[in-house]
Amino acid sequence: MHGKSGLENIDEKKATERIIEFLQKKIDEAQVDGLVLGLSGGIDSSTAAYICAQSLTKEKILGLIMPSETTSSEDVLHAQKVAEDLGIEYEIIHIDPLIKLFPTMCPHEANKLAAANLKARSRMMILYYHANSLNRLVVGTGNRTELLIGYFTKYGDGGVDILPLGDLYKAHVRKIASYVGVPDEIIEKAPSAGLWSGQTDEEELGIKYDILDQLLNLLIDQKLSEEQVSEALNLPLNEVIRVKKMIKQNEHKLLLPEIPLLR
Amino acid sequence: MHGKSGLENIDEKKATERIIEFLQKKIDEAQVDGLVLGLSGGIDSSTAAYICAQSLTKEKILGLIMPSETTSSEDVLHAQKVAEDLGIEYEIIHIDPLIKLFPTMCPHEANKLAAANLKARSRMMILYYHANSLNRLVVGTGNRTELLIGYFTKYGDGGVDILPLGDLYKAHVRKIASYVGVPDEIIEKAPSAGLWSGQTDEEELGIKYDILDQLLNLLIDQKLSEEQVSEALNLPLNEVIRVKKMIKQNEHKLLLPEIPLLR
Repeated sequence: MHGKSGLENIDEKKATERIIEFLQKKIDEAQVDGLVLGLSGGIDSSTAAYICAQSLTKEKILGLIMPSETTSSEDVLHAQKVAEDLGIEYEIIHIDPLIKLFPTMCPHEANKLAAANLKARSRMMILYYHANSLNRLVVGTGNRTELLIGYFTKYGDGGVDILPLGDLYKAHVRKIASYVGVPDEIIEKAPSAGLWSGQTDEEELGIKYDILDQLLNLLIDQKLSEEQVSEALNLPLNEVIRVKKMIKQNEHKLLLPEIPLLR
Repeated sequence: MHGKSGLENIDEKKATERIIEFLQKKIDEAQVDGLVLGLSGGIDSSTAAYICAQSLTKEKILGLIMPSETTSSEDVLHAQKVAEDLGIEYEIIHIDPLIKLFPTMCPHEANKLAAANLKARSRMMILYYHANSLNRLVVGTGNRTELLIGYFTKYGDGGVDILPLGDLYKAHVRKIASYVGVPDEIIEKAPSAGLWSGQTDEEELGIKYDILDQLLNLLIDQKLSEEQVSEALNLPLNEVIRVKKMIKQNEHKLLLPEIPLLR
């Protein structure tokens, strides 16, 4: 079902079942009363929500929709549609009041990175505020493609308790999204982290997800050299090197804070 | 220099030198322009600040003092004294405006845990807001005693880039504090996380740091059984079991978010 350079197919049914088992086991082990997750209206968080809703009773899932002024109203509507379709509890919490406090509190001016990360970290804080109060786990919605290249905010959207989609490449998430019933309009729109207006992931990353998935699979899972990956995908070597550099630079986001050994 | 149950002594000079080397190496590897750290006026952050100031030029260190309404004015004065003694840049940023927004934004009421964690996470956000804008690393001030029992907030004071004191038990931090010149009044006051008024660590933990250090050393480093630890320290077995349970329950704070393997 796949060529030399293609990504292996995934068995949607089996994968979904394993994720459900995983969620149930983690809730049990942590002795918590349920789950909290952020709903962005995008494919990842929608897929995670549909799978959560198959894993435990709906009253035990809280979806938080946390738009900022750069969030499109379409995304908010999609997130609401997901929550309403599933019948889970949800709340819409605008994060701008929080964001707007920062320039008044901090004399140093924020650059683009600080401003984008601030949004992701505000959402993390709001998720944990609810999770701590309700004795629940925070479900992250990151996938393997994002995790490998570090396309997430450290202690922001990366600051979660469990990552049910963490072993799925973006293409796999798309397949599972269809399988679990995520509405087509959500699956088909251009993926965006929504950190500024009109942002799309593929434009920011400078590479299509389809190519990126295959590149990461060959480079990381199959351990091919940069030259071999370049040849297999008919991609400029520079492009492979660029992605490899991204992986290396963001590696710290997937590791625990480093400690010097002294004793 | 130590009995059967005692904690091994540490060579303050050697340990300090190794931490300095570590800091310089990390700054170099990450290609950043300096360090940002929170100054609470307590022994850990003060010790970290004194060591940072020996590691790079003072202009490259920013100390953030982030009091809330439960922070004692003595702690703020101590933190200021540290920054002024060292001649590093510092700012005082009151976090209450941020904290007070939450009940207005979130319909669910916060319990004590959520409220305490909110403070720690607000401080993390402020530290990274500066670190991202200035291209710097966030220095954590956690020590080995706190880390092992999980006495910190996940993605709060635990949300940092590096942990220079992470291999030092509390007793070791005290020794190094004296060695690097932390003022006595900071070394001698009762340690407090400052999460509510009048809080002291030892009261909240229900155990003295001196005993806790030794208990952890025997249980974790020397791998003694609970019974052996109880006997060696002349401590009720229940007390050893209680600490072991704390370690187990908070283990997730020292691990990366779990991912179900699917492929």
